Amino acid sequence: MGYPFATRVQSITSSAVRDLLSIIQSGDVISFAGGLPDEGLFPVQELELAYQKAFRSGGKGLQYGPTEGDGELRLLIQERMHAKGISVAHENILITTGSQQAIDLLAKVFLSTGDAVLVENPSYLAALQAFNMYEANIIPVQSDDDGMIPEELEEKIITHRPKFIYAVPTFSNPQGKVWSKERREAVVNLAEKYHVLIVEDDPYSELRFTDEQPMPLAVIDRFGERVIYTSTFSKTVAPGIRIGWLSGPKEIVRMIALAKQSSDLHSSAIDQRALCYFLQDFSMQQHLHKLRREYKERLDVMQDYLKGSSPNLFHWVEPKGGMFLWVSINKAIDTAELLKVAVDEGVAFVPGVSFFAGNSKTNTLRLNYTHSSPEIISTGMSRLMTALDKLLASSVRDQ
Amino acid sequence: MGYPFATRVQSITSSAVRDLLSIIQSGDVISFAGGLPDEGLFPVQELELAYQKAFRSGGKGLQYGPTEGDGELRLLIQERMHAKGISVAHENILITTGSQQAIDLLAKVFLSTGDAVLVENPSYLAALQAFNMYEANIIPVQSDDDGMIPEELEEKIITHRPKFIYAVPTFSNPQGKVWSKERREAVVNLAEKYHVLIVEDDPYSELRFTDEQPMPLAVIDRFGERVIYTSTFSKTVAPGIRIGWLSGPKEIVRMIALAKQSSDLHSSAIDQRALCYFLQDFSMQQHLHKLRREYKERLDVMQDYLKGSSPNLFHWVEPKGGMFLWVSINKAIDTAELLKVAVDEGVAFVPGVSFFAGNSKTNTLRLNYTHSSPEIISTGMSRLMTALDKLLASSVRDQ
Repeated sequence: MGYPFATRVQSITSSAVRDLLSIIQSGDVISFAGGLPDEGLFPVQELELAYQKAFRSGGKGLQYGPTEGDGELRLLIQERMHAKGISVAHENILITTGSQQAIDLLAKVFLSTGDAVLVENPSYLAALQAFNMYEANIIPVQSDDDGMIPEELEEKIITHRPKFIYAVPTFSNPQGKVWSKERREAVVNLAEKYHVLIVEDDPYSELRFTDEQPMPLAVIDRFGERVIYTSTFSKTVAPGIRIGWLSGPKEIVRMIALAKQSSDLHSSAIDQRALCYFLQDFSMQQHLHKLRREYKERLDVMQDYLKGSSPNLFHWVEPKGGMFLWVSINKAIDTAELLKVAVDEGVAFVPGVSFFAGNSKTNTLRLNYTHSSPEIISTGMSRLMTALDKLLASSVRDQ
Repeated sequence: MGYPFATRVQSITSSAVRDLLSIIQSGDVISFAGGLPDEGLFPVQELELAYQKAFRSGGKGLQYGPTEGDGELRLLIQERMHAKGISVAHENILITTGSQQAIDLLAKVFLSTGDAVLVENPSYLAALQAFNMYEANIIPVQSDDDGMIPEELEEKIITHRPKFIYAVPTFSNPQGKVWSKERREAVVNLAEKYHVLIVEDDPYSELRFTDEQPMPLAVIDRFGERVIYTSTFSKTVAPGIRIGWLSGPKEIVRMIALAKQSSDLHSSAIDQRALCYFLQDFSMQQHLHKLRREYKERLDVMQDYLKGSSPNLFHWVEPKGGMFLWVSINKAIDTAELLKVAVDEGVAFVPGVSFFAGNSKTNTLRLNYTHSSPEIISTGMSRLMTALDKLLASSVRDQ
């Protein structure tokens, strides 16, 4: 039966890659494909105590709450943002169901059909999907290892007059890279010059492996008029509680609140209450320290396999934080083909092509190193190397 | 500063009524305005135990989960729906952040700009807001005390070719009424005849005050092809946990899942896990029995004030369940004016005009009887009667 769906969803199809990846989730395949933190590192006991406290403090979190979110949680987030150098009033912070909802609501209030959005290329897949849902015109801007290329950005701002620029400047997904200070300043300057908004998606910055703290675009935006910032507790506390937030100019946050009201009234109030107690009673600093140490160790195990292979077979920029290792293979190979062989060997990843909005590089892949233990990463990487050897051998035979 | 918002939100403004109601929330005003259940009746201890169990069972609810929702919760909801006579596969049930999100996602996948939606008049305000967000053409269909009027519905289906009909047939918001069996059948028959979908919004049916169980439209829809059903635990367990669901034809639920993925990935996984334990370990039947008894008592207190006033001053249909009493005043009076006087007297309600999509009846108001205790309802109704007397006296003077 054909139902009369809206034009916005008529072009949505499940991709071949997604179908393959969903099949392997049930099997004996080691997956470097997802973007999952390790549930073994979740602060389960601390959260249990925080929820207990939320219930024993009168169960306020069980009633309908304000669309903008729990007042106390907004204050706690404000404190955390101040510590990063972002000065924002707590009224200009709005709680969302993960930062994915922040992206969706921004798209909802800004994008009419055909409106342009500039994105890095490659970029975060689910943001592209959210923009597509509002029938946006997604324009890729090329990046190098230092970030978006300002000359191309300026040209595309002039040509396309975008509603906003979407960027993940710190430990990006999929590339795990950090924009340089110069690039950050250049991009914010262009946004000011042309009165364009920037959506700074910052889910990973607290998972840093060095002492270097990249300056958020929201700090460079001196007047607080151009950058909308979004982040989440999904990578640092636990994704299942689905708590993210956004902050930005008052007028925009007020409009987002109206949009959120008709979207879901508000995010889980009990989860917000419990997160307040969690943040008040436990040391996030100590927890983050543990996560950084563990994830860095896993990254090192993964990189050792790349380093141990034929010289120049792989190119990658060592991530200074985040969850992903982005690898280019210096051969004429299609990583979508590699994935098929890899799954047969018992390991999975996401072919890079999934993240490009144009000009795909088919020799790239994204590896997640946060979900599996070092031992499993070791086994998985060994399988991946076998798969690559097999594919290269068979392509030699085919020639 | 003017930001370049999408056309869909450019017409959104906060209404004068909403502004007034938001002001009084902080004061000493008794509010019959909201649609809130009584937090004093929330099963706080039972929920605390359910969350504890969720944490002690391995904290599975802390990781990312499936967009469609927790598998076990979908099975438990399927059971509850079967008990109401609705036969649906658990794969065709999708968990949402309250039923508000179900309405939003349905609008998202079905409504392109200008698409028609038929609604009862008056209708649930936040559904109208959700449809407006997708720039729908909202067409009101007149109702009488038995429900939507089939002749007018048929005419408007033919004229407007709507994407769907939106209805709250059981203890509706704002009118608290129940559609008759004949009307339910007539509406479903028309939907089948003209291949139109029906969105049956059913948040209140478990809060019934009599043994009569109105048959859901989803039961009358024999082939399961025309009715999308949505409900929630907000009124029966607690709204703060924000768990609702929808069910419908497989093809539609799959499309909704794709839309939800880009909207927020999934609803709180820990809340879903805990709700599973709550439903398994405690008797919802007993809890519902208590809610029904309490809320019926409050309704009676409220009605006694209407019954005790001048004969024929008020018209209302006694609600057989739900949360709202809808009152028409048999005088040439504007309840928006009455609200101003009422707030001065220390009581608030929602003027009926807020719920109409056209042909507003300005002499109507909606009273909520579930949030306040019987004693407070008594005080509030006494204040309301004083306000009405004052307004009527002043309008006699003005003549």
